[in-house]
Amino acid sequence: MKRIAFIDLGSNSVRFVIYEISDTGSYRLIYQEKESVRLSENMWGTHELTPAAMERSLESLKAFVHMAEAMGVDTIKAVATAAVRLAKNGDTFIKIVKDETGLDLECIAGEEEARLGFLGVINTIGLKDFIVFDLGGASTEITLVRNRRIVKAVSLPIGALTLTGTYQKGDEYTSKELDKMSKAIKKIIKEHAWLRNIKLPLLGIGGTARNIAKMDQRKLSYPITKLHNYEIPYHRFYEILQEVVSKPLAERKKINGLSTDRADIIIAGMTIVDELFNYVNTKTLVVGGCGLREGLFYDYYGQHYLGGNPIIEDILVHSAENVLLGMTKHEFVHANYICGLAMKLYDMLQPLHRADRNVRRCLMVASLLHDIGKRVNYYSHARHGCYMLVNSNLYGITHIEQAFSAFLVMNSHGLTPKEYKNFLYGKLLDQEQRLLGQKLSIILALAEALDESHEQFIKSLDVTIDKNSVQLLVTYAKGKNISVTKSAVEKLVKAFKKEYKHQLHIEWTEAR
Amino acid sequence: MKRIAFIDLGSNSVRFVIYEISDTGSYRLIYQEKESVRLSENMWGTHELTPAAMERSLESLKAFVHMAEAMGVDTIKAVATAAVRLAKNGDTFIKIVKDETGLDLECIAGEEEARLGFLGVINTIGLKDFIVFDLGGASTEITLVRNRRIVKAVSLPIGALTLTGTYQKGDEYTSKELDKMSKAIKKIIKEHAWLRNIKLPLLGIGGTARNIAKMDQRKLSYPITKLHNYEIPYHRFYEILQEVVSKPLAERKKINGLSTDRADIIIAGMTIVDELFNYVNTKTLVVGGCGLREGLFYDYYGQHYLGGNPIIEDILVHSAENVLLGMTKHEFVHANYICGLAMKLYDMLQPLHRADRNVRRCLMVASLLHDIGKRVNYYSHARHGCYMLVNSNLYGITHIEQAFSAFLVMNSHGLTPKEYKNFLYGKLLDQEQRLLGQKLSIILALAEALDESHEQFIKSLDVTIDKNSVQLLVTYAKGKNISVTKSAVEKLVKAFKKEYKHQLHIEWTEAR
Repeated sequence: MKRIAFIDLGSNSVRFVIYEISDTGSYRLIYQEKESVRLSENMWGTHELTPAAMERSLESLKAFVHMAEAMGVDTIKAVATAAVRLAKNGDTFIKIVKDETGLDLECIAGEEEARLGFLGVINTIGLKDFIVFDLGGASTEITLVRNRRIVKAVSLPIGALTLTGTYQKGDEYTSKELDKMSKAIKKIIKEHAWLRNIKLPLLGIGGTARNIAKMDQRKLSYPITKLHNYEIPYHRFYEILQEVVSKPLAERKKINGLSTDRADIIIAGMTIVDELFNYVNTKTLVVGGCGLREGLFYDYYGQHYLGGNPIIEDILVHSAENVLLGMTKHEFVHANYICGLAMKLYDMLQPLHRADRNVRRCLMVASLLHDIGKRVNYYSHARHGCYMLVNSNLYGITHIEQAFSAFLVMNSHGLTPKEYKNFLYGKLLDQEQRLLGQKLSIILALAEALDESHEQFIKSLDVTIDKNSVQLLVTYAKGKNISVTKSAVEKLVKAFKKEYKHQLHIEWTEAR
Repeated sequence: MKRIAFIDLGSNSVRFVIYEISDTGSYRLIYQEKESVRLSENMWGTHELTPAAMERSLESLKAFVHMAEAMGVDTIKAVATAAVRLAKNGDTFIKIVKDETGLDLECIAGEEEARLGFLGVINTIGLKDFIVFDLGGASTEITLVRNRRIVKAVSLPIGALTLTGTYQKGDEYTSKELDKMSKAIKKIIKEHAWLRNIKLPLLGIGGTARNIAKMDQRKLSYPITKLHNYEIPYHRFYEILQEVVSKPLAERKKINGLSTDRADIIIAGMTIVDELFNYVNTKTLVVGGCGLREGLFYDYYGQHYLGGNPIIEDILVHSAENVLLGMTKHEFVHANYICGLAMKLYDMLQPLHRADRNVRRCLMVASLLHDIGKRVNYYSHARHGCYMLVNSNLYGITHIEQAFSAFLVMNSHGLTPKEYKNFLYGKLLDQEQRLLGQKLSIILALAEALDESHEQFIKSLDVTIDKNSVQLLVTYAKGKNISVTKSAVEKLVKAFKKEYKHQLHIEWTEAR
């Protein structure tokens, strides 16, 4: 077991996280703290960090170093961004930090900052081609990603805080002010013609993006409360923008999902996003909950656990296995075995269900995680499993796909229409998805039944599909008693017939 | 790590469970199976188990024994109840079982069955004086419990299945038939005069009781889906009875929460319960989800892990620790430490919050389990913790107390009124509970802050309460750096003032 801490000293706040990496290589966040030290306060005239700002930051860093020691952290990696980078006395500050805390605070270049933020995004969001924007108080970082690699990155000198200060003179914006602000944003964005009409989805990180997602989720009574990977189409974004603009501050503060202390700067923030939508010409905004800190972690993890590669190839498999490994080795092995059986059955039954690759991935996740609910309570473990599946750090899968996977877990034990009404995530699925889910959950149920006794003795599976029937040929390890398994599988014949309109015949053969 | 299996061979079905006991002594159910073998079928004329019934049961027992072996079970404890007990050829059957499966099937007496069922109840339900009824197909077992010990137990020859068969002649009951059935039930209950007007709450186990709870929960859109320890007042029970009686079978099947395959016998079952309500003269029915199988487990566990005592003294502490120990040792130690601090603060602040013993127990549970949500996801861990707290096997605490404890966990990080609306279990709490919860969650927050660095260096706490202020004297271990802890505690001064209307002053003293 190892514990690693990361510190990200920004212009406004300093963030501190501790990850624990177990002996199996699984990892989890175990602590986080944030302090608003306002390191860049009053520095833009002289471009010097003020003694007061340095002192505040130093205090926090000391506390974090102490905390790390107390928590048994092995390594601390600390980086400083814009404020230290741009300050004339940045080096002095770094030296003071070293002297007073022992910490090697590394001032990273803009490109490195973009790379780390990108690592946080690419290892937790399943998009290949997209535009990341990190909308802060004083600037907005924009990164173009193609085929999961950075193509271009730029920092725009517009932020929610500075724009509000510049354009809103009274208690509320006048329509003229709003107009002026939009134009100014447009002008700055237009300097980067490579963004024009590029039609890629936007991936937003930072407080503004998170708040947009939260407001939308509350409006929809959305059954998942996770913001990471939440997708908002432009028309809903625009509706919220209209609401936010039309309400005076006091009313705005009451909007469900909007942080009270962001109500003053949300208009400027959302206007930047609106102009990005327009210039890029896209209809989709995806919200990301991970950035620089997660990037620092994946950089470390890639170096020490993945042979130097900080970009994980299949983030869904990786994150699902990480959730599983957080349990016990035994559960991991069993789940992988069930998953293998389910994938085989899925592929062989392809002519009957005709589902696509994304659906296959949902079945994979469902079969990997089908038992994790037992950690909460054996009774109703399918329901608890759904909760954990939806709320765990599972990456590379959309919210709807998570709901679909949860349905597979839930329905693999059979759900009556009456019971379906009580399935929390059902409202995210349409009728077609539900019917497909019913089909595929039989596959998960079959896979589970084929290892009912947890002996993992299935040697091979073969399927022959006729007009009205399906022959499943099961070859099992020599000398094994299959009665328990057999009866578990036979129990599913009726459900199979109902969903696939084919009679399932199973033939059991002992391997030689 | 040990795995123990239990088999309960009843008249109708045979049930099989596997428990895992870890090296720390924590335990959890990891497998369960049930087969409807109908062992007593056609035996009541001759009082002999039929060859077909024995064969069916034998098949299931073989499968279970195989399953137990495959799952690495160390010990199997198997008991048979009424059918084998009352059959002339019971001994022969037991011998066949031994010969063909190696299993020592023990035929237990009625008193032992009552004792084991009682152990399942008393270790999972926090009542001291009550009447247990176990309503089955052909009989109803009634046990009087006083001061957590069995006083009297009796088996009534009335069950949901046999009564339906006897009194309902057509597709539906006539009102005359219903009347006759009620009278017959009344007559049989009245033979046990010690039940009359005893005014103790009823504790119902078995399918009928569970279905009553489920129907009521669905009607109320109850936010907890757990049935165990659900409480129903008579007026709501009666409402459901009226509905069930007034609807023909086809309509009855559609009632949300009622199992389709129980819709035919629910009227008889509920009529028995209704007559019990009346004769005992009580207004409360509590539903229990644990019985004989859990009793078998606690009997074993008491013998091997609790020095021979199968009745756990404090089931709330025991079950909370069991949940915690299912995590890691480190989490257990930390949680216990926080709990100790919270209890101290609670007691010292008693004059200000004036809460009672039950509330203290809620705070205890909340402080023991405040961090378990981190197992799901660090982000929103308070919310996940609430889910786990409410859905774990936590005993000796009512649903409302669970909701209250969950609120303490949730609010210890602060919840705005806007956020409170999204607190799932809020609808179970009234305004008074909410206000008290806000007060007490500050105590949990203080306890957590006092061990912010996880170093457990607090040596003692003292409180002096003045008219407008509270002095908290904290003595910490010599040589410790308290800056992190201090700043975490200081952050709570404002919230303390808001809830307690007293200014909190903290004095830090290093131990000598």
